[in-house]
Amino acid sequence: MIYLDNASTTKPLDKCIEIVNECLKEDFYNPSALYGPSVNLSRKIKEAREIILRSLRGEGNVIFTSSGTESDNTALFCTKKPNGSRIIVSINEHPAVFNAAMELKQRGYDVVFCPVDNTGRVIESEFSKLMTKETSLVSIMHVNNETGSVNDIKTLCSIAKSVHPNVLFHSDGVQAVGKIKVNLTDLGVDLYSFSGHKIHAPKGVAGLYVRSGVNIRPYLFGGGQESGLRSSTENVPGILSFCYALTEAVTRVREEGERLDGLRSQIIKGIGDSFHVVEPIAHSPFILCLAVPYVRGEVLLHSLESHGILVGTGSACSSKKTQKKLPGILGLSEEYENGIIRISFSRFTTKDDIDYFINAFILEYNKLLKYVKG
Amino acid sequence: MIYLDNASTTKPLDKCIEIVNECLKEDFYNPSALYGPSVNLSRKIKEAREIILRSLRGEGNVIFTSSGTESDNTALFCTKKPNGSRIIVSINEHPAVFNAAMELKQRGYDVVFCPVDNTGRVIESEFSKLMTKETSLVSIMHVNNETGSVNDIKTLCSIAKSVHPNVLFHSDGVQAVGKIKVNLTDLGVDLYSFSGHKIHAPKGVAGLYVRSGVNIRPYLFGGGQESGLRSSTENVPGILSFCYALTEAVTRVREEGERLDGLRSQIIKGIGDSFHVVEPIAHSPFILCLAVPYVRGEVLLHSLESHGILVGTGSACSSKKTQKKLPGILGLSEEYENGIIRISFSRFTTKDDIDYFINAFILEYNKLLKYVKG
Repeated sequence: MIYLDNASTTKPLDKCIEIVNECLKEDFYNPSALYGPSVNLSRKIKEAREIILRSLRGEGNVIFTSSGTESDNTALFCTKKPNGSRIIVSINEHPAVFNAAMELKQRGYDVVFCPVDNTGRVIESEFSKLMTKETSLVSIMHVNNETGSVNDIKTLCSIAKSVHPNVLFHSDGVQAVGKIKVNLTDLGVDLYSFSGHKIHAPKGVAGLYVRSGVNIRPYLFGGGQESGLRSSTENVPGILSFCYALTEAVTRVREEGERLDGLRSQIIKGIGDSFHVVEPIAHSPFILCLAVPYVRGEVLLHSLESHGILVGTGSACSSKKTQKKLPGILGLSEEYENGIIRISFSRFTTKDDIDYFINAFILEYNKLLKYVKG
Repeated sequence: MIYLDNASTTKPLDKCIEIVNECLKEDFYNPSALYGPSVNLSRKIKEAREIILRSLRGEGNVIFTSSGTESDNTALFCTKKPNGSRIIVSINEHPAVFNAAMELKQRGYDVVFCPVDNTGRVIESEFSKLMTKETSLVSIMHVNNETGSVNDIKTLCSIAKSVHPNVLFHSDGVQAVGKIKVNLTDLGVDLYSFSGHKIHAPKGVAGLYVRSGVNIRPYLFGGGQESGLRSSTENVPGILSFCYALTEAVTRVREEGERLDGLRSQIIKGIGDSFHVVEPIAHSPFILCLAVPYVRGEVLLHSLESHGILVGTGSACSSKKTQKKLPGILGLSEEYENGIIRISFSRFTTKDDIDYFINAFILEYNKLLKYVKG
């Protein structure tokens, strides 16, 4: 199996599986209990929090949540926002931010959507126009999950703060952490989401960075875990394996980035000129977004699957009825608009995988094209 | 290690660990993707949902969440409730319900707290007095997590519906599922919470039953998973191992209940008459709550720990500043009120464990008493 849908989810590291097993077999205690083994787990969670904070160069707190979606929802719903105040999100946010923003719009907030260029990247001049003194919250993703476009969060954040110093700036960094360099203090963000299963930790664990001095309300009320901000018995195996995976990915980010950028270029060169390649000003080396003419992405996906190759399509895993669709954003002409394919890499992707992919891709695409064109 | 704090969390079953490992190693795909392995996982999740529904004799839907707390919060926050309407919860609910109710009180709801008897059991006549036509939601736990008292949910639910047929009745069944017989249709509840890690599944997964015909709003907004009611990439290893653990526990519930009731009685007999034993009209065989005179529960807990025995105290793992404290509920006289100990069992608890516990308990208690009394 050649797995090229790593922006969707990733294969957990052996070491993460080992940590999970140790927790499930030996360290299954409730970290809130008073006896030794629990106190020990509570200390390990505290350490994991500090390690992650240091890895991402943050100054503040990390709240462990159950998913990137929960982190995003917490950022959107639990920040202080005067009734009716403006909230800016980009038009192409992940549904976890987009649909939370739509909910806030229903609750009477002035939610506005910032335009993006034809690679999904937020246009800074357009953002400037929308940013007002009445804006309480901005949420703009760091790396676009569909196109791999990298937003200039530092600049956007600085524009926002220059207009209204008290605005809160959140960024969904789920496709950024462990994939591109992330320095939270340098970015200047107040809140930042990241998730375990996108970086080889298990599903069911994620984090929300909250900058020092930023107050949020709890999203889950209960026993008072996570300093009262996220009650629930802590997912110990999730948290400890997440910490391992994150640190490891952050350490390798430069080296892996260079290697994967090579593979990404190899595909662009290898498949020839018949396709629309999304080439953002700044891109994540982990994602390559393509559009093929006349052939449906979903059909090509299944043809590639017959070769043991798994890729994503532009619209997989989200229900974005209200949201601007990717083909519209990419400005594709009619023959391309149903043919979006997302190829996303991981540390397990090899040059041989890519050679194999290119051959299968060309073969299957031509077969399908012949069939479509008769 | 003799682990007698199973109401806090339980040791995962080997078979659950096996399922988790299989998911992490082989079936790590995102269930929302379009290719075969993902479609297969999506089908497995659907099956797990149906199996759990059948096991609990429910008619409706099961939403997979990340914790009992999330299930409880979803029930309290996402149900339709006219502004200012009455919400009834018992005075001794788990903090996940109690603190969510306190939040709703702050938001202007008429939240009232139903009294309990001196074993933590809701007094039906008191509940009747509170139940009005303006009541939109009731939330009363099935089994009290501190005392093991079993509430008569069927009767309470029927009282509620007789006063106001459209009231929604939620019960926190986290200490009930797999521990006592649960027939959701017979209970008549609209919503019911249950959690994995209390019944030998891993932490980080739980369920919320929503009866057919009951509409709730989503708590997490995003990609539209769980029929749009709980967005987030599904925690596949959690869900599949949870399904196994739940079915297994439900199948064994009668046999284990009888066996553990024997061990519970063995302790009550074995420790003698110097202690206050909480004896509810109906109790869970998995929990025994005791109060010892003159000695602090926490101190006794650590003394028992020196024998390799882990137990809970009445106030562990919760921060209930606003809530009526357990000693008050139990009506303990002064010398007992700091001496609450919760002993909670599992399928792994043996008669030998209990023999060992009784000896250590008497030895350590007498030592501490001597020390206290000088």
